[in-house]
Amino acid sequence: MAEVVALVGCKSPAQEAEYLQILSAAMPGERLVPFRRMTDAERASVQVAIVANPDPAEVAALPALVWVQSLWAGVEKLVGAFDRPLPIVRLVDREMARTMAEAVLAWTYYLQRDMPAYARQQRERVWQPHPYRKPADTMVGLLGLGALGTAAAERLIGAGFSVTGWSRTPKTVSGIETSHGADGLPAMLGRCDILVCLVPLTPETRGLVNAARLAALKDGAALINFARGPIVVTEDLIAALDAGDLSHAVLDVFDVEPLPAKSSLWTHPGVTVLPHISGPTDMDSAAATVAANLREYRSTGQPPQGVDAGRGY
Amino acid sequence: MAEVVALVGCKSPAQEAEYLQILSAAMPGERLVPFRRMTDAERASVQVAIVANPDPAEVAALPALVWVQSLWAGVEKLVGAFDRPLPIVRLVDREMARTMAEAVLAWTYYLQRDMPAYARQQRERVWQPHPYRKPADTMVGLLGLGALGTAAAERLIGAGFSVTGWSRTPKTVSGIETSHGADGLPAMLGRCDILVCLVPLTPETRGLVNAARLAALKDGAALINFARGPIVVTEDLIAALDAGDLSHAVLDVFDVEPLPAKSSLWTHPGVTVLPHISGPTDMDSAAATVAANLREYRSTGQPPQGVDAGRGY
Repeated sequence: MAEVVALVGCKSPAQEAEYLQILSAAMPGERLVPFRRMTDAERASVQVAIVANPDPAEVAALPALVWVQSLWAGVEKLVGAFDRPLPIVRLVDREMARTMAEAVLAWTYYLQRDMPAYARQQRERVWQPHPYRKPADTMVGLLGLGALGTAAAERLIGAGFSVTGWSRTPKTVSGIETSHGADGLPAMLGRCDILVCLVPLTPETRGLVNAARLAALKDGAALINFARGPIVVTEDLIAALDAGDLSHAVLDVFDVEPLPAKSSLWTHPGVTVLPHISGPTDMDSAAATVAANLREYRSTGQPPQGVDAGRGY
Repeated sequence: MAEVVALVGCKSPAQEAEYLQILSAAMPGERLVPFRRMTDAERASVQVAIVANPDPAEVAALPALVWVQSLWAGVEKLVGAFDRPLPIVRLVDREMARTMAEAVLAWTYYLQRDMPAYARQQRERVWQPHPYRKPADTMVGLLGLGALGTAAAERLIGAGFSVTGWSRTPKTVSGIETSHGADGLPAMLGRCDILVCLVPLTPETRGLVNAARLAALKDGAALINFARGPIVVTEDLIAALDAGDLSHAVLDVFDVEPLPAKSSLWTHPGVTVLPHISGPTDMDSAAATVAANLREYRSTGQPPQGVDAGRGY
C-alpha cells in the first residue's frame, strides 16, 4: 500500500484540488491526502506533511511527523511553533528564484525609469521629462544573499546596474561587492540608490529596516520590500517618505495581509502597494522539487535539511 | 583657420550651451557655431550642420551645406524638406540603442507584471493578485528591426520573453522569427501579446497601426509605441481599448508633442502617457559618434551615408 503524505493549509477547496492534482502527478507511488480527509489512523502515522499556509495546530495534530515540506520560501510561522524538534524544509526552487529576480529587475526599472513620477504627472496632465539615469550610475543594494538575492544580483548585473549586497554571514557573489553583519550594514546602506529586502523574517531581521537604517541610505533613495512586512518598520518608513529622505517605496508584503482597507499605505503618494505577487510559487516546478526531496527521504530515511531553528532560516 | 560647423535647432539657450560644450570637446580642430551667432560669410560657406530639432528654414538658409548630421534617430521632419538633394544622417548610436532596448524591456515588464492593474487596484484599495504569466509564455512582437529593434530583441530574449519581429524588407535577427512586408504582417500580429513600435515614420508607416492591425492582435494584447505618434491611428487605438480588444497602451510619442492638455489620452484608464523619454540621446556618446562621422568626412571628402529619401530612413 502506498505511503500517505499529508497536504495541509490550502486556502480554499479549489486550491487544494489544484495542488493535489499537480503534486500527486509528480509523486507516483505516494498517496497525498488533504488533512481534513485523513482518517484518524492516517493522522496518527503520517511521516511527511506538505504545507501551504497551515494552521500550526493542524501540523501539531500529526504526532508521527518526521518532517514538514513548505511550498513557500518563507516559513517564519512554522519555525519554533511545535513542542518538539520538527525539521521544516523551505521551498528552494529555481523557478521561484527566477521569478523573484525578475520582479526585482522589473520594479528596479519601475523606479529607475521614473514610472511613479510619470504616473503622477499623467494624472495632472503634466508633460515633463526627467533626466535619464543610467543603470551603471544606479546602485542597487540587496539585503539578503540567499537563493533569491543571488539570483536577483545576477539579473541586475546583466541589466547593467551597480549592485552591492549584504548578508548576516560572509558571502561571495560573483560580480558584486558584499558586506555582512551588523558592522557591515551602515556603509552598504550609504551607497544605495535602491534598497531591496530579500532577507527571511527572523527575530534578527524583524524591524531591521528602521529609522536609523533608512536615514543611512543616500538622499532620495527608494525601497523595495519583497521579503516580509515586519522587516520594515512601517511608521519609520512613512516618516522617511514624508520627510523626503526616501523618494518611494514598493511594498509587496505587509505586517497584516491582505493590507487592511484602513491602512494609510494605500493612499500614500510615495508608496506602491502590491498584493504579495513578487515571487509566486510555480506549482509545477515546486512539485518536482518536493517530489525529489520525498524520493530522497524514501530512499535514505533521512529528511532533507530543515531550517536552522536558531537562525530562523 | 578651423572649419566652421553649424549647430542648428537647440530648443533653449541652456541646451545650446550644453550641446556646444560637449560636441566641441569631442571635435578638436572644428569650430562649432550656433546658427544664430554665425556671420553671413559663415552661413554662406558652412558645409556641415549638426541639428537637434531645427526649423527646416534655418537649414535651408545654409546654401553650401554638403550634409546634415541629426542628433536623433528620427529625422522625418528633414527628409524631403529641401529643394535640393541634401544627405540627412541619422544618429545611429550604441548608447541610444541600449537605452531604447532597456525601455522596451522595462515597459514590457510593466505590462507582463500587471503594474497598470495593480496601480488601479491600489487606488480602489483592492487586494487581488493576478495569475503570473511567464515571459516564455508572453510573445512580444517588434515592428521594426533596425538598430533599435535588434537591440530590443536581444534584451527581451535575455529576459526569457518569446520574441517575433517584422520589418519592411527581409531581415535575420539571431534567436527570433522574423517576417516582412505587408504580406507578413497579419500572421505576425496574430501571435502578439505585446506589440512594440520601433519603425521610423515614413509615408509607408504613417497609420500603419490602424483598426485592422489592432484587430489582428491576440485578444487582450497590449501596445507600446516608442517610435512616432502618427504610426498609430489614435482614434482606432481608443476604439480598440474601449471595446476591450486591447488591454493597455504605453505611449511615449504622439501626433502633437507635448501632448495637448485637452487630449483624452491623458485620462484614458487603458493608456499610460510618457513624455517622450524612452530613448533619450546620450550627448557624450552621440558627440563621439558625430565626431567620428566628421573626421571621416574631413579625411575622405565623402559625407556619411544619409537617409534614403525614397524609403524615408
